[in-house]
Amino acid sequence: MYEERDWPLVWPIIEDIVRKADTFCYDPHQTEAQAHEMWVTPPPGHVVVAVEDHAVLGTANMYPNRPGPGAHIASGNFMVAPGARGRGVGRALGEYLLGWARADGFRGVQFNAVAASNTPAVGLYERLGFTIIGTVPGAFWHPTHGPVGLHIMYHNLS
Amino acid sequence: MYEERDWPLVWPIIEDIVRKADTFCYDPHQTEAQAHEMWVTPPPGHVVVAVEDHAVLGTANMYPNRPGPGAHIASGNFMVAPGARGRGVGRALGEYLLGWARADGFRGVQFNAVAASNTPAVGLYERLGFTIIGTVPGAFWHPTHGPVGLHIMYHNLS
Repeated sequence: MYEERDWPLVWPIIEDIVRKADTFCYDPHQTEAQAHEMWVTPPPGHVVVAVEDHAVLGTANMYPNRPGPGAHIASGNFMVAPGARGRGVGRALGEYLLGWARADGFRGVQFNAVAASNTPAVGLYERLGFTIIGTVPGAFWHPTHGPVGLHIMYHNLS
Repeated sequence: MYEERDWPLVWPIIEDIVRKADTFCYDPHQTEAQAHEMWVTPPPGHVVVAVEDHAVLGTANMYPNRPGPGAHIASGNFMVAPGARGRGVGRALGEYLLGWARADGFRGVQFNAVAASNTPAVGLYERLGFTIIGTVPGAFWHPTHGPVGLHIMYHNLS
């Protein structure tokens, strides 16, 4: 469970990822205050951190994907600290998100924009049970690869 | 081109559609102020109205679909007044959106959540050149049909 005192350890993870702009569709020039507003989704949204020995290894947020008639489908995002990758942190956060969504009665979880070039994330989501619903061609402008596809991925929970 | 003086004629169109909650994933209980914030997207977003004899027949908004590495793809929404449907207003608004997106250098236009039950909209978008990229099963909770699919639709402009 994220608490505001965690932010100084969460922000460096987010800052590294948004500035690189090679995985997420976030504004790479956003300020720390904008990042806080973007990441720390208010209730019914939920934010967690993966912690080991007072270090934050990763963070996830989760929330209804859309209002009104779309509010029974959840969405969310994961970020893992560069030094903590390959250790199952992303998988633990993903399993947490699925458990949270099930417990809150969501019928499924949708990721709206997974860069096709982010093969570790795509592979992790597939191992978690997500499938690629479709791919918008060239919708992610990768800083070195140029335009790559953006996957819409979905995990049914009903 | 939308101007603030148009709002009193735009809001009844939006209110009818959001309260019915049978086409769009908007909060059906939103206030007029929330609807204004939702619909009147600030620059680089753009809002237009279709006007005939001082009556507003429909409205559209348009904007970059995502920030940062996704900002080269546009998105948008159309609403047509109940009494003006079947007269080509939606088609005119759609053609306007595609022209705006081309002129502003967008590489494509993506609709993120088109209810599969909204067959007039799906048909219009297909006639405008959009294709269905994928469908998230049951992601739209229709007030009478229950869960129906949400299409992701895309029109390449590059």
